Amino acid sequence: MATKVAQTFRLALVQCLPGSNKVKNLQRAAEMVREAASNGAQVVSLPECFNSPYGTRYFPEYCEPVPDGDSTRMLSELAKETKTYLIGGSIPEKYQDKIYNTCSVFGPDGNQLALYRKLHLFDIDVPGKIKFTESDVLSPGQTPQTFDTEWCKFGLGICYDARFPELAGLYRNRGCKVLVYPGAFNMTTGPAHWELLARARSVDCQVYTAFCSVARDESATYVAWGHSLIVSPW
Amino acid sequence: MATKVAQTFRLALVQCLPGSNKVKNLQRAAEMVREAASNGAQVVSLPECFNSPYGTRYFPEYCEPVPDGDSTRMLSELAKETKTYLIGGSIPEKYQDKIYNTCSVFGPDGNQLALYRKLHLFDIDVPGKIKFTESDVLSPGQTPQTFDTEWCKFGLGICYDARFPELAGLYRNRGCKVLVYPGAFNMTTGPAHWELLARARSVDCQVYTAFCSVARDESATYVAWGHSLIVSPW
Repeated sequence: MATKVAQTFRLALVQCLPGSNKVKNLQRAAEMVREAASNGAQVVSLPECFNSPYGTRYFPEYCEPVPDGDSTRMLSELAKETKTYLIGGSIPEKYQDKIYNTCSVFGPDGNQLALYRKLHLFDIDVPGKIKFTESDVLSPGQTPQTFDTEWCKFGLGICYDARFPELAGLYRNRGCKVLVYPGAFNMTTGPAHWELLARARSVDCQVYTAFCSVARDESATYVAWGHSLIVSPW
Repeated sequence: MATKVAQTFRLALVQCLPGSNKVKNLQRAAEMVREAASNGAQVVSLPECFNSPYGTRYFPEYCEPVPDGDSTRMLSELAKETKTYLIGGSIPEKYQDKIYNTCSVFGPDGNQLALYRKLHLFDIDVPGKIKFTESDVLSPGQTPQTFDTEWCKFGLGICYDARFPELAGLYRNRGCKVLVYPGAFNMTTGPAHWELLARARSVDCQVYTAFCSVARDESATYVAWGHSLIVSPW
């Protein structure tokens, strides 16, 4: 008798609001993942930089080794506890003498399924609006990453990676049906591009696209757009 | 003394309404191109199928050889008369035993600069909404086409070609600054994708994108969306 596999599943995006206290950031993220799972989510994503304020000044202070740091250990235990596929948004990762913007993914058994380092660093200068240079502090990843679930294959990107249709097309060609981009667009790029890019990636590649943002904090040095969303290709 | 080249130019999109009378379609298109030129347009585009109603039943009746047919001869003379770069939307082209959806471009001297045959035929079946199968009658082109002006290089696509970021990316890689897509989206794909795709191609490739549609005719068998537009990458 063949195993019956459900054709649908519930994906939750956790739009948490990281502050300066890492322990509290992890606690709040965990509470929200538990809430999502208790409401039936089988796959949960956290946003970019869920354990740290977003900003180049913060990355050296908040970075950790992966998987042997507090944040990643928490993700593994939380995935196992909630029996979810947990897409760990991103954290600043310390690896050798470099810092990466890194997403790790854990399965319902707590095992790590993927480690993705942001490929396209966010170096932007819109005069009078916003200037931000991730590459001052971060190093770029080198490798696209997918992971499998019983429903379909997922492709991973982080934030500015969504600006590049080539990465999404590569995942489509590898058979991904869902692309997940933890992100933190801002008050300039958010209204200009956030929804546009999510819809474009979905229509271009005929995949579901999930953009999971941190919440907006107008007192932060970098004010995020928020507006987490999932787009259907249809 | 170096020749001074203007950094800006005026591009006009002619949103004409082709009916069943080919002679009148050509006359009306010519009037509108003259009007655009008299208002300062230096580059003018006509829409897809500007000499014919849009529909597989019409293509065999309205098709012509290019450049030795009435429609293409008119385009050449009109470009010379108005001293414009004239992007001839598209017409059904008879070539050997096949029919193509073909755009020809003429320079201000009346010489042909490009011949582009639609690469991605529009075969669509949205149950209860719209079914259309260009490939019942048309053959696909095989080659992207660009042309040069004193301002920049242009890339050509027709309608459904805009759904494919790879073609736009190829033109971007070849140095195009403007992509022109004569088109005729319909009342299903128009609201869903017309503006989205124009904006996506512009943001993805950092180029200007022009979508030139026929006008809406609610009595036609194929009702076009209209909404010609030009999108800035900024």
